[in-house]
Amino acid sequence: MNFLEERILKDGVVKPGNVLKVDSFLNHKMDVYLLDEIGREFKRRFAGEKITKVLTIESSGIAIALPVAREFGVPLVFAKKAKSINIDGEMYVAEVESFTHKKTNQVIVAKRFLTPEDRVLIIDDFLANGCALQGLISIVDAAEAEVVGCGIAIEKGFQDGGERIRNLGYHLESLAIVESMDAQTGHITFRSQN
Amino acid sequence: MNFLEERILKDGVVKPGNVLKVDSFLNHKMDVYLLDEIGREFKRRFAGEKITKVLTIESSGIAIALPVAREFGVPLVFAKKAKSINIDGEMYVAEVESFTHKKTNQVIVAKRFLTPEDRVLIIDDFLANGCALQGLISIVDAAEAEVVGCGIAIEKGFQDGGERIRNLGYHLESLAIVESMDAQTGHITFRSQN
Repeated sequence: MNFLEERILKDGVVKPGNVLKVDSFLNHKMDVYLLDEIGREFKRRFAGEKITKVLTIESSGIAIALPVAREFGVPLVFAKKAKSINIDGEMYVAEVESFTHKKTNQVIVAKRFLTPEDRVLIIDDFLANGCALQGLISIVDAAEAEVVGCGIAIEKGFQDGGERIRNLGYHLESLAIVESMDAQTGHITFRSQN
Repeated sequence: MNFLEERILKDGVVKPGNVLKVDSFLNHKMDVYLLDEIGREFKRRFAGEKITKVLTIESSGIAIALPVAREFGVPLVFAKKAKSINIDGEMYVAEVESFTHKKTNQVIVAKRFLTPEDRVLIIDDFLANGCALQGLISIVDAAEAEVVGCGIAIEKGFQDGGERIRNLGYHLESLAIVESMDAQTGHITFRSQN
């Protein structure tokens, strides 16, 4: 079991509706040492890859992606949910359905921040149905840049997002893949990654 | 002139309506080296203070606050805009009017993440009318925790938020205080901090 799986067992809480709460260490109150360790682990898993930018999506993706960008020494770009009056110029746009908030958002990235020369590592905290990840991939594609890989902190292995992304041929690394979880007992099992 | 003021002059863009765009290095595409430098500078400005938590507000505050929390070796808590079905239990709530988005949000922090023993450093990217900062202060007050200080990347010195917070007696440090800016010429002047 790796450091993130151990932490999920220790501090994660399973709630009805396939909700895994990790807000005490990953997406509300955040453990800065854990985030650094996540950064180092993605550096290890994508070692040898030439990466020019890390791309994530607001909000909780930012805290996961920043240590990764730091490890690679490249800029971090985060896709914004479209609403800001401060965003002008041309934008790449993707439709993303949020599992958590049960609605569809337009997410945008300014065109000048992704170019055909970019080799992009996409990072996010959760992967469930894969909508957010597919939206980010479509933005990288629209920029004619290359998706080097996708790094996810926690994948819900019982939903089909991970399989779909892997079947499309992308190099997807999830630090913890939850195979099943039970809100009544609180029991969580992880997919073996050996 | 400090490193952030220099960077604003180099890469910031003044837009009509008192908008300063820093999205090429601070809040859309982010320079990880600059963020580290911001973390170190706040560590220097609040040196000797006992700090147990860093508090910020989503989204763009997270990238500024994380390197600060990392420097102090304490957890980062970010206030969320109230919308999530994943948030249960008791919450501290504040009303915050967004200058950028022209609307009022409820922002929330789970009560279990702020306790009366906490000594909190509040961090955000921008300070204009001070609504976000006052909302965060009110949340720390509600938790009966102590606000050790407030650290802001860019303060709009021609708006009254900074003065109001300082008049309330808080130790407020802004790395760059914009005294005036002109959308026609692009000219920006900073308040001297010597």
